[in-house]
Order: sequence, then structure tokens, then C-alpha cells
Amino acid sequence: MEAYFASRNDLILQDRSSRLDAYQLKQVSDVEKEADDIVRTIRTVEANSVWGVNKTTIFDYSPDDNSPNVFPGMAFLTARDIAVHTKVFHIMSKMPKGALLHAHLFATVRARKLLEIALTQPAIYIRTTTRLTPSSIKATLPLFKALPFAQRTNLTSLTDDAYIPGEFVPIRAARDNFDVSLGGPRGFDDWVISCMEINPSEAYGTHNTTAKIWAKFTSTFKVNEPLCFHMPIWKAYVKQFFLSSVEDGISYVEPRLSFWQKFCSGEDGESNIPHREWLMAYDGVIKEVKEDLKRQGRENAFVGSRVIYSTMRTDSPEQLEWYLEDCLALKQEFPHLIAGFDLIGHEDSLRPLIEYIKPLTTFQERQKELGLDIPFIFHAGETLGDGTAADMNLYDAILLGTKRIGHGFSLVKHPKLMEICKEKKIALEVCPISNEVLRLTTSIPMHPLAIMINHGLPVVLSSDDPAAWGSTGMTYDFYQVLVSSEVSGLITMGELARDSLKYSCLDDDEKQHALAAYNEQWSKFVEWVVKEYGTNLNKPARLN
Amino acid sequence: MEAYFASRNDLILQDRSSRLDAYQLKQVSDVEKEADDIVRTIRTVEANSVWGVNKTTIFDYSPDDNSPNVFPGMAFLTARDIAVHTKVFHIMSKMPKGALLHAHLFATVRARKLLEIALTQPAIYIRTTTRLTPSSIKATLPLFKALPFAQRTNLTSLTDDAYIPGEFVPIRAARDNFDVSLGGPRGFDDWVISCMEINPSEAYGTHNTTAKIWAKFTSTFKVNEPLCFHMPIWKAYVKQFFLSSVEDGISYVEPRLSFWQKFCSGEDGESNIPHREWLMAYDGVIKEVKEDLKRQGRENAFVGSRVIYSTMRTDSPEQLEWYLEDCLALKQEFPHLIAGFDLIGHEDSLRPLIEYIKPLTTFQERQKELGLDIPFIFHAGETLGDGTAADMNLYDAILLGTKRIGHGFSLVKHPKLMEICKEKKIALEVCPISNEVLRLTTSIPMHPLAIMINHGLPVVLSSDDPAAWGSTGMTYDFYQVLVSSEVSGLITMGELARDSLKYSCLDDDEKQHALAAYNEQWSKFVEWVVKEYGTNLNKPARLN
Repeated sequence: MEAYFASRNDLILQDRSSRLDAYQLKQVSDVEKEADDIVRTIRTVEANSVWGVNKTTIFDYSPDDNSPNVFPGMAFLTARDIAVHTKVFHIMSKMPKGALLHAHLFATVRARKLLEIALTQPAIYIRTTTRLTPSSIKATLPLFKALPFAQRTNLTSLTDDAYIPGEFVPIRAARDNFDVSLGGPRGFDDWVISCMEINPSEAYGTHNTTAKIWAKFTSTFKVNEPLCFHMPIWKAYVKQFFLSSVEDGISYVEPRLSFWQKFCSGEDGESNIPHREWLMAYDGVIKEVKEDLKRQGRENAFVGSRVIYSTMRTDSPEQLEWYLEDCLALKQEFPHLIAGFDLIGHEDSLRPLIEYIKPLTTFQERQKELGLDIPFIFHAGETLGDGTAADMNLYDAILLGTKRIGHGFSLVKHPKLMEICKEKKIALEVCPISNEVLRLTTSIPMHPLAIMINHGLPVVLSSDDPAAWGSTGMTYDFYQVLVSSEVSGLITMGELARDSLKYSCLDDDEKQHALAAYNEQWSKFVEWVVKEYGTNLNKPARLN
Repeated sequence: MEAYFASRNDLILQDRSSRLDAYQLKQVSDVEKEADDIVRTIRTVEANSVWGVNKTTIFDYSPDDNSPNVFPGMAFLTARDIAVHTKVFHIMSKMPKGALLHAHLFATVRARKLLEIALTQPAIYIRTTTRLTPSSIKATLPLFKALPFAQRTNLTSLTDDAYIPGEFVPIRAARDNFDVSLGGPRGFDDWVISCMEINPSEAYGTHNTTAKIWAKFTSTFKVNEPLCFHMPIWKAYVKQFFLSSVEDGISYVEPRLSFWQKFCSGEDGESNIPHREWLMAYDGVIKEVKEDLKRQGRENAFVGSRVIYSTMRTDSPEQLEWYLEDCLALKQEFPHLIAGFDLIGHEDSLRPLIEYIKPLTTFQERQKELGLDIPFIFHAGETLGDGTAADMNLYDAILLGTKRIGHGFSLVKHPKLMEICKEKKIALEVCPISNEVLRLTTSIPMHPLAIMINHGLPVVLSSDDPAAWGSTGMTYDFYQVLVSSEVSGLITMGELARDSLKYSCLDDDEKQHALAAYNEQWSKFVEWVVKEYGTNLNKPARLN
């Protein structure tokens, strides 16, 4: 029997030897070990007390059972309100997260905040194409636009009888005078926000397929883009993104910024602000936030930001050429701001990478000519397909030398590509909640992340488009991952965070600095865990 | 560009080189190739025409969209009625399937058929513990029992006012006199069947977690076991299982037979029929079916059957010892009928293998003493867990030398165990529809099967408990798998079927014979596909 258990332990160790936490687990400090143990204990307790694991047994069948279907790692949009009150969530909210490497910039700030910003902008107008009534409102989208002075109206309501569908109303007036039958100003907010967010009845009911939920998801961008691409909002949004990231323990952000629209509207609603001015503004906001934090003595809380130049997979290869040249020009002017290049949009239905091989390889040659280095950081394999064009994007992303892979959800179906990713340290930017809300998986225990981690694939966690699911930051992603495994623990979460800095596009020097700052934050954090939860595991979670 | 495409093709080939169809794809005959192409074409056409792939684009959002959420490989209980009318289904129904290696014997025959058999049995009585009314019927289970003459009643109704809950009524009378307010005799059938089957509103609504749906699943056995373990029904059931398997193109079956109950009731409702008499009866049914088929000139359609001795994971290690000795004795008496040994029941909540190491290793020593060979064929890893006891069962199953693994759903999380399974040819008995209905996955594209196949893990497809989801045979499993991949095709399905014979517990001679018979069936089948569908891909599917 002893021999059996010895060989069993040996087998388990071998099986887990390539995990990202294998090395760290051999050299943890006492306090790290204690914090990890504490979190495992709390997780087990909450699995029962909060998530009802072990509550029903297989002998407890009740045909008229109407109890909620809850479990750890369950669908986010219904789990959120439960998760937020747990101790594990509280701990994750305090954990330093390292870098956010996969997020679409204009889906990172809560819709309510965006609306709040938009309401301060005199150029922002709103219209609808059908008359709003209590019965039509659910199916009607708010259409925003920044208007030049000449086109501005002084209409006062979107909902009174005099309103002619299609006419623009100033956003502030539209809100103030929103009909009481539609909920008044608060009804206006709820309506607009519901069109910028995916709600559970859509994700898990009416639009419960990847194709249908992507249609809803795309429509949220139709609603918020006219706001985000108005320069005064643009700047305020970016600042809010940085601040909320810092608040969540994220010290560096590398968002995808879509340059597909060639211009933002200026404050006057008239002028066209070109891409280079976007980056000047971006640079300005970074400096502002850094200075603010420095004044507060928190300069290590934010080491900065770079953007991944992104454009849409809707364009033809010929149309793409303009963007590639644009990207080269921007990299020349802002070498410290352009981290890489990507193509974005729904992989299952838009053009696969293989259609763009020619312009993309030309792009690489042009970089050599110009002495630039703009790594590809491609979305690939964000699909349930096995051998579909979206799944095959993985071959092209890797053959084109991608530095990381956005999602790589289907990568675990490709043994040879897994080998290459491990060898070449091509990290997967895994977005667990995004994949779940967008219906590639229906819960985190069903997500391939555990497969990726156990196989030693380089992995980082990301939030993708948290605003679209009413969230911000990465706490929820870490939470969902932590409660969905019995192998991973706090040490694992720390390694995931550290790896996000390692696989970022920071320069070597910056990276060393960021990692040193991270290690300091981490030490304080594990000490806090022990102090806060070590002595009394049973005290209630502090609400955030 | 040419060089790019050459290295791309090379990479794809490498990536797919360990798939089970890799060798076969290099040497297919013209007719196999043609049949495979035909099926791929039909699959693509039906993906659109039947499953609506490409119907909605990401630009087609409609907030009041109430169209059904359909896609290829979607949840079985709602897909079934659509799938059955497709050409791909028609083709799969005609395909020779080889061996069925993972099925629980008394969940293989449709509930309606079982009820039909039960209704002919004078010893079978039924009762309920609460009064049946239109509002209570949904939450009340029918409780069957075989009664000895002395206890039989001549009550005539389960539903009239005179019925006292708990009293036994003859099944036939209970059906005949079932109250009209409850639907009369057809209402009786519907009620009984609904308690033996999982319905979509349970699996996908009220009981939509693995724990809750297992409670329902377990209750179906509570209803049907008192019927199945009545010897006259037992025999008729086994015969029906063989016949429906043959009808579905399955030529060999190796079901789990639960010996947990020590006795069946005899025809008189009184006598206790011990395990050895079960196997004598089993042997008799095999002979009967073989002789029938021989008379019809179809002897190759059924090469026979063996059972995997199974008992429950509910018992203590001490209790298990009795069953292990029982299994040894049965193997000595019926060496040609006992294929292996397994422990069954819900892995997530019942005892893990590690609790049984001692009796199980003793069992292996006892086999050596007695000169027997009873391979373990353990259920393991039928779980969403990552590092839970159910997931850890995989380590023990493998360390104990399991010949195959029942499910192995979580095996893809274990790189070292995958290596061992490939090396030692430990086949996974994958049950796609079972895993989906029992909520380990919510559709087949989310199932790890594609990962298993692409990584070259030995895999066979199985049906597990088709009766519990209103099905029988393996056609639906093959259908769901075939429509959920663009890599796998008809050739792959043929290899899966062939492998099921290879990984069976047939003797070498029998295996050679079975494989030769299979190859003959396969040749006829691919010719049929070409003849039936080759000339006119657009003709409508023939309904079955």
C-alpha cells in the first residue's frame, strides 16, 4: 500500500510538473503558504455555504425542485450578485493583478460611467428610428451622434408626441424630459445602459448561441462608439479606464485600440481628429494619471500603457493595406505607444487570417525596411469550431509569428500548435468570462483553461470587454478561475498575474521594474490575507 | 506565398498526424473517398438549411428575436426531433457501428418498450405514496414491485377515491383504470415513461447542474429497477437490447451489468434468483438471438456479448469484498461472459477509487492464484472537476491497470495520463450525449472529444444510458459527433467503429472475425452512401 501511494504521488507530481505554478510551489515562503492554505479553506467552506456543493445528493430528487441552479464558476451574469459577497471575491479584489493584456479599450468602462460622461457633452445628440413607447422601448436602440453647431437642434424631448423619429435631440434634454411612462430620467439611463450591456435573459435565453449573442454584442458597440469616438469623451474614457484598472490592482494595460474609424469627432462636433492626435491624447492621459499617482505616493501602482493597433476583419486585403501603412507611421512617431498589431471582430463569421497573408507579410517586410518592430498579437481560435476557418486561424497566427494569441480557445485541439506555443512562449490571452458570456462555454469548469494550465501552455487572464457584461477590471475573472479548480490556488493566481507582466510588450527594463513593483505588492497582499483571514476563518466577508 | 502555403499544409498534417484516422486517410479506396466527400457536402448544406449556420450575422441583432437557438451538435433532447429528419442522420443510422463498449444494461431499451413488457407480467404491481391528482402526478413516482401470490391484491385502480396510498395494484388494472382526468391508459403510460426518462425542461431548466440532473437520473433507476430485476422481464429486456443493437448496426455489446442487487425476483414474485442464474439466462438469450439471426442469414450481424461485472460506489471497502469474490466465482463458471470489473455510480458524490485500493489489489492477487484474468474497466474522470476526488480517480484507475476508462471526460486535463493512455492503448469510452444530458457539457462542440481525437488518444463512442434520454443504439451519438467537426468525416466514424472492436474484450480470434465482418459491412455501407446520395445530393432525406 505504501508503495502504491508513493507511486501515486509521483505520478501526480509528474502530471503537474509543467504547470505555471510548479516552480513557485517548490519555493513558497511561509506566509505565502499560509495565505494559500487560508484561501483553499475559505473556498471549500464557501463552495458549500454559498454555492450549495454537496447540498443535494443523487438520492434527493424532487420533481418540483425550483431551487436555483448554482455552483462555483457558474454563468457570470447570474453568479455576479452572489460572488460579490464572498470572502474569496474580497480577497481577489485586493490581489495585485499585474498586466491586462487583452481588452478592447472601449468596452472597459462601465456603461453608466460612459453615459455620465456623455451627458456633460453639449455636442452629443440622440435619436431613435421608431417612436418610444412602453412596448417598443425594449426593441429600440438609442442612436447617438456628435453634431456640429449648424445641425444642433433645441428639441426638448425624445418621447413627447411632437417627436418625429429620426430627429436629433440634445442628450441632456432627452434624459431630463424622458417620459414618466418610460421611467423618466432613470428610465432613460436604464434603457441606454441595457443597450450597451448583455443581460442574462439574452445570453442565457433568447440569444443563447455564439452567433446570436455576438449580434447583441456587436450592437452594444453600435450604441457606444459614437460616444467613445467623440474626443472629449474619448479622453475621459481612457482616463477612467486607467483609474479603474489601478483601483482593481492592475499596474499595466495593453488594450486593443480600434483604428478602423479614421477620425474621431472633435469637441465642436465638426472637426475630424486623425489617428496621430488620438495617440497624443493617449500619451497625455498616461502622464496625467502617472503624475496624480505620484503625488499620492503610489507611482508603482501604474507603470503605464501601450496600445495594440487593431482594425476590423471586415475589410478586404486591399483595404487593410491603408491601415498597415498607418500603423507603421504611428509606430515611427509613437514607438513607446504601439505595442503590436491585431485584426478584430467575430472570427466565426468574418474574414479568416488566410485571406490577409499577402498584406501581412508585406507589413513585416516594410518593418524591416523601416527598422521597426511591431509584433502581431492576433486573435485566433476564439471559436467552438474543430477545423473551421476560425479554428484554422491558429495555424496562420502561429506561422505569421504572433507574439501572443488572443483567446486561443480552440488551441487545446491542436497538439502540434500546443508544442510550438510552449517552445516559443506564445502566451494565450484567456478571457474566461468573455468566453462564457459569448457562449463558447457555459461555465468556467467547462472552459479549457484548466487544460491549458495543466499542459503548461503560457497563459494570462484577461477581461476582454467587461463593460459589455456590466463589469470592469479583472477581479471577477480571477474569482471565477480560482473557484473552479481544486489544483489552482492563490499561488497560481499570483503566477498568472506575474506572467501577464512577463508576456507584455514592455521593454526589458520596464518589465524588470514592473515585476519588482509587483513582488512588493504581492508580499503586502499575502501578509494582508493572513492578517485579515488567518485568525478567524469564519468571520463574515467585508462587503466592498 | 507558395512557400507559406506549403509550410501551412505541412503544419496541419503534423498537427493531425496522431489522429485515429490519419493512417486510414492515406489509403482510402475511391468509393470511401467519394462517400466521405458526399457526407461532407451534405453536412455543409444541412448546417445551413437545417441548423441555420450563417443565417444570422453579427449585424442582424434583433432585441425581440424569438427564433430557436439551434446549431449543429446542440443539446440532444431538443435537437433530436430535428436531427432525425436529416440526411446525415439517415446515413449514420445505416452505418455499421462495431461494438458498444459503454452502456448500463438496464438503460438501453426504450422506456415504452420496458413498460410494454412489464404489462404482460402478472406479478408486477404498482403503488404510489401520495394520491394521484392532475396537480400531484408530476411530483409522484410510480413504485413497482414483483409480488408473491400471497401478497397480490385484486385492487382495480390506482386513481379512484377508494385507493389508499401505499397499496399495491396490479399494473395492468392500474393502467386500464387510470382516471380519465389523468389521461386514462395513455396518461398512465406517459406518466410512467416520464419518470423513467430525463426531459428537456429538467435537463435544461429546473435541474440544469450536474448534481441536480444526477438526482433525476438516479430516480429513473429507482422506477425501472424493480421491473428490470424481475426475471421474466430481465430476459425479455436483454433480448430487446440485443435486437435493437443489431438493428442499429452494432455487432457486439459489452454492457455494464450491475450485480449490486444480490437477487432477481422469479416469475412467481417469490423466489430469489442468484447471480449465476442471471448469467445462465444471459447466455441463453445470446444463443437465441444468434440462432434467429443465423436462420435469417445474418449471423455476422451479431458476434455476441460479454458483461462487465459492476457494483456500486456506495458500498464500503469491506462490503466490496463480497462482490469481488462473487465476480471471481462467476468468472470461473462463465469465463466467456465476464469481460471485466467496474464500480459504478455518481463519481462526484460517491466513494472515490482510492478508498478501495486494498480490496482491489487483493482482487488482482486472487486472480493470479486462480489463474483468471478480469481486467478493471473503471469509470473515471466523469466530472467537471479539476483536482477533485472524481478527477483524481483517473490516477487510480491507471495505476490499477485499467484496460479502458469509462468516460475519462477530465483526462484531457492530465498531460502525463494522456501520454500513458496513448502508450498503453487505454481507450476512453466517450459518451457524448450522456455527458451533455448529464450537464458535463452543454453541446457537443464544447465536449473534449475533439481534443481527445486530435491528440491521438484511443477513443471509442458509446451511448451509456440511452433509455434515460428516450433513445437507443448509437446512431445519435455518431450523428452528434459527425456534425460537430469539420475535421472528422465518414472515414473517422468508420475508424471509431473499428476501434471499438479492437478495444473490446473479445478474444483475439473473435476480434479478427468481428473485424473481418465489420470490413464487409463497411464496404457495403460506403457503396450504399454513394449509390443513395452520390447522384443527387439535393434529394430529400428518406424518413426512417
